[in-house]
Amino acid sequence: MTPTAPVPKPHVKTIATVCLSGTLDDKLVAAAHAGFDGIELFEPDLVASTSSPAEIRRRCQDLGLEIVLYQPFRDLDSTDPDQFARNLIRLDRKFDVMAELGVDLILVCSNASADAVADVDQLAAQLREAGDLASRRGTRIAYEALAWGREVDLWQQSWDAVRRADHPAVGLCLDSFHILSRSSTIDELAEVPGDKIFFLQLADAPHKDMDVLQWSRHYRLFPGEGAFDLVDFTASVLRAGYRGPLSLEVFNDVFRQSSPVRTAIDAVRSLGALEAGLDDALPRQRFDAAFVELSVTPTNLAVAESALSALGFTPSATHRSKRVTAWTQSAATILVTVTTDAPEDDSSAIAAIAFDAEDPTGFAASAEGLNVSALPRVVRPGEADLPAVAAPDGVSVFFVSTTSGGLDWRRDFDPVPGADGETGAGITGIDHVSVTAPFDRYDESVLFYRSVLGMRTDEVAEYPGPYGLVRSHLLRADPSGFGVALDGPLLRRGKWTPGVQTPQHVAFVTDDVIATLNALPPDAPILRIPANYYVDLRARLDLTDEFVESLREANVLYDRNAHGEYLHAYTTVIGSQVYFEIIERRGDYRGRPLADAPIRMAAHVAARRGKATTSG
Amino acid sequence: MTPTAPVPKPHVKTIATVCLSGTLDDKLVAAAHAGFDGIELFEPDLVASTSSPAEIRRRCQDLGLEIVLYQPFRDLDSTDPDQFARNLIRLDRKFDVMAELGVDLILVCSNASADAVADVDQLAAQLREAGDLASRRGTRIAYEALAWGREVDLWQQSWDAVRRADHPAVGLCLDSFHILSRSSTIDELAEVPGDKIFFLQLADAPHKDMDVLQWSRHYRLFPGEGAFDLVDFTASVLRAGYRGPLSLEVFNDVFRQSSPVRTAIDAVRSLGALEAGLDDALPRQRFDAAFVELSVTPTNLAVAESALSALGFTPSATHRSKRVTAWTQSAATILVTVTTDAPEDDSSAIAAIAFDAEDPTGFAASAEGLNVSALPRVVRPGEADLPAVAAPDGVSVFFVSTTSGGLDWRRDFDPVPGADGETGAGITGIDHVSVTAPFDRYDESVLFYRSVLGMRTDEVAEYPGPYGLVRSHLLRADPSGFGVALDGPLLRRGKWTPGVQTPQHVAFVTDDVIATLNALPPDAPILRIPANYYVDLRARLDLTDEFVESLREANVLYDRNAHGEYLHAYTTVIGSQVYFEIIERRGDYRGRPLADAPIRMAAHVAARRGKATTSG
Repeated sequence: MTPTAPVPKPHVKTIATVCLSGTLDDKLVAAAHAGFDGIELFEPDLVASTSSPAEIRRRCQDLGLEIVLYQPFRDLDSTDPDQFARNLIRLDRKFDVMAELGVDLILVCSNASADAVADVDQLAAQLREAGDLASRRGTRIAYEALAWGREVDLWQQSWDAVRRADHPAVGLCLDSFHILSRSSTIDELAEVPGDKIFFLQLADAPHKDMDVLQWSRHYRLFPGEGAFDLVDFTASVLRAGYRGPLSLEVFNDVFRQSSPVRTAIDAVRSLGALEAGLDDALPRQRFDAAFVELSVTPTNLAVAESALSALGFTPSATHRSKRVTAWTQSAATILVTVTTDAPEDDSSAIAAIAFDAEDPTGFAASAEGLNVSALPRVVRPGEADLPAVAAPDGVSVFFVSTTSGGLDWRRDFDPVPGADGETGAGITGIDHVSVTAPFDRYDESVLFYRSVLGMRTDEVAEYPGPYGLVRSHLLRADPSGFGVALDGPLLRRGKWTPGVQTPQHVAFVTDDVIATLNALPPDAPILRIPANYYVDLRARLDLTDEFVESLREANVLYDRNAHGEYLHAYTTVIGSQVYFEIIERRGDYRGRPLADAPIRMAAHVAARRGKATTSG
Repeated sequence: MTPTAPVPKPHVKTIATVCLSGTLDDKLVAAAHAGFDGIELFEPDLVASTSSPAEIRRRCQDLGLEIVLYQPFRDLDSTDPDQFARNLIRLDRKFDVMAELGVDLILVCSNASADAVADVDQLAAQLREAGDLASRRGTRIAYEALAWGREVDLWQQSWDAVRRADHPAVGLCLDSFHILSRSSTIDELAEVPGDKIFFLQLADAPHKDMDVLQWSRHYRLFPGEGAFDLVDFTASVLRAGYRGPLSLEVFNDVFRQSSPVRTAIDAVRSLGALEAGLDDALPRQRFDAAFVELSVTPTNLAVAESALSALGFTPSATHRSKRVTAWTQSAATILVTVTTDAPEDDSSAIAAIAFDAEDPTGFAASAEGLNVSALPRVVRPGEADLPAVAAPDGVSVFFVSTTSGGLDWRRDFDPVPGADGETGAGITGIDHVSVTAPFDRYDESVLFYRSVLGMRTDEVAEYPGPYGLVRSHLLRADPSGFGVALDGPLLRRGKWTPGVQTPQHVAFVTDDVIATLNALPPDAPILRIPANYYVDLRARLDLTDEFVESLREANVLYDRNAHGEYLHAYTTVIGSQVYFEIIERRGDYRGRPLADAPIRMAAHVAARRGKATTSG
């Protein structure tokens, strides 16, 4: 790579209308509201619109949106000269529309039909002829290799054709999905003159082992939400000299039916995070969980306090002006806040997670830069003014510091006399917090934790619950640090949903889970694990009868992999959706034993039904 | 194929617990309620259950369910002798569980892991050793080739291993998905002794171009709901001499989160339809649409009547005792029923479709045989007692005959004096009716029309609406006969659903759509199609300016394929969800031009918003 002049910043940010749900006007309003500079106009959105091209042009001008690309034009080249001639007429008619729209760039994608031209010189000659037409009409052509093109399906082939066409009005369109889905290298981009890259389309995607066309049409994601390295990709394109917009083109089944305003805000955030990544400016702070805040209704307070007490927690401090108590055990702190603002009498919820970092204001600044709204707070004189933002999963995220007085949450609390904060039952800290992301905002939630907190996905999985499949991400900023797990239904739930709708839990860590459990009082609300589980465990793994029996007696689930072991127990559900987990990791077992999740879920159902039977 | 003794009927019908949502007990109750004879116990359902194997055995006995199979046992064979020895111990422990359950057959599937045995003689020797163990425990092994097995992935390979194992306790398990997903032939089944086929698992699936494991785990369907020919497959297995249960094993994301009682009823119906197919007893009657019944609220009646009148319909008859009017034009009849039992003041709905056949009671009998509940009806003296059932899409299906007096719906109506029933605007009949199937009941709806009415899927497709992707089936009993189109959202809709939630429409047919439209009064509620559509149409297809202009003036959409042309226009939405289409087919254009659907949907949105603007 040769060094080039610095890239102008901030980049122009645009979005293809196909990314957003609704009518064309819904899409334009949403894109403008989110702060995009312009749009790629997806032809079917124009064709279905009741506004004329001239009206759309004016509407975009009024909204401050530039139309940077008209797309797509399919199947330009042809082995049949008559067909190619008809295709040029079709192209010319699109130039008429583009003139009315005031857009001078059209996306031509490689031919996926039976008459696609295989010979690169013939293809180049046809592109040159189209380029002549474009020049006469004052437009330009960005030629793109579809990953499923019949003859041209790699960007290198599209470049070969464009290079041979050697026409000022014919350049490349690079689309990250088409390139990264094929695992194509982009090293040769350094040989491509920057001004021959006419357009850059960005899309991320999860790994999928499926037909690439279906993968592309249904599962694309915004940069930072999937498994591709868009920072590296985009940096290569910019190093090659590309100076056009950073433009999003995402086909996604969920986004297609979600609020376009929300989706557009998520989309612009993904480009902000991408820019931060290009500048190496994503957060890299290490952090711990200062506290997790549990909000409970008055009727539920006693159950929550008794559960924490049974797990060895003690009240260590009380808030000076609010009904909040800090329950502490070693490095684990749970704030219990009484709320009267809950949907049900037995509601309990993880209301907040506080991240304890060296530079909390740095986190807050990067969140603001990503259009994450700060939460309004009422701060009384003398109280800590803690920066906080709302995560898409509904949890408030606080940025605090226990080393900087002004941002130390503890200054608002009075210590409970006599509380020593020592270990009660051996719990030493919080391993991770697990929350349920709303169906429409799952990918947005992943992006939030990755971009605002600099976390990375440690584990991505899918597991069967009794009432449907669940998808799951475990995110951490560093492999041994505090984690956030995002779970959510693979399909939006319908009416038949007898399980806990939006489970949340806090996973505590201990050095010896069986000793911890044995230290608990007999009425501790530990979830009973069915005997069948231990029979199967003994059949599956080479464990001694004594060890399996010790697990069974303590209601501990067990897993083992090549790196270590994972022993864990759960409480029953406190109120409507929250429970606790106690974890012991042996060796270097990362991630979570997700095969145990269905066991836990069925046991929670049984505990709930048993409770319903005994207490009505 | 050699003829064999007739197969005993009815077959024993069983279902794998993994097909159904809920806890194990939810599944057992649902299977028993639906009338299954037994279950395959899916091991994870047992492991997560709080009931012991002996308790599950008693529960099944109480419910009248036999446990016919324990499944699955994975990765039995191994290239590592120590590992194989451990696997036999694991198998022996499963035999302990099976003894408690009272089940004597276990499914062993081909090894998908790295230590799978490739050498067929070594594999056979290990199966033989497992067979010895099984014999000692009074059990048997059904060995199945997974479509993604590492060394054994075709049923022929599993048969080769079983044949060489040559052990009375080792036989085959055949699974239609694993076989048909690989497009394997089953011709060689004739060489397999019937008593070596220990078990038969049945699953259908839609065509998917994706990794076979993911296809299998997410998209299986009950027989008759997908694209495989299960009748042919099952007949071959029965001809080979198989005499065990017909058992369903379906992994499906939607069924996993839908009511298990409903799913089980749908499942048992699929086996009933399969049996009818084996007996060549599925309905084969030709039929027409006698009428489509539209229910409207009093406030909506004038709009509906004025729309029908504008389309050239005239009131031809009125019901003797109910507020129902028959509107007729040539062979098309719409009953308009006034209802006060609608969710909204402006509700209108397709309440019923009446199928006019030679033998309506034959249809009713076959529906009853498939557990489709007959609709209760109040019949007054002298009124026709028309058999009717409820389709899963919520529409009532009537079976009538215009050639048999007792089942002629018209006997309940008094003709309107002077009504001649002649053509008003050239509409000659009903081409198809399109209804929205509920998300959870889409596949059940497809099965309903295929099994109860003997219809076949003419066209299966997916198209983008402004508010999300839509899936679609067009079903007909014969290619030129009356059709039912089932549409539904590809994903369950969430809160952001500004479009018509459950559109329904009746598609009328005419010989000349432009003449028909020109014959309508100027205030006919024809949907305005945007000018952009015609600009694009002219660019896409080689049509004269004059022809495109005539389409534009009449608001007619146009498509052409290799077989013919399709011209069509729509009305605006009458009330909340119903509209009409007028179709002209030229040549042999089958199916529907689904690329026009997004245009129609966007135009409906525009018409609705325009109306909101002008009339409040």
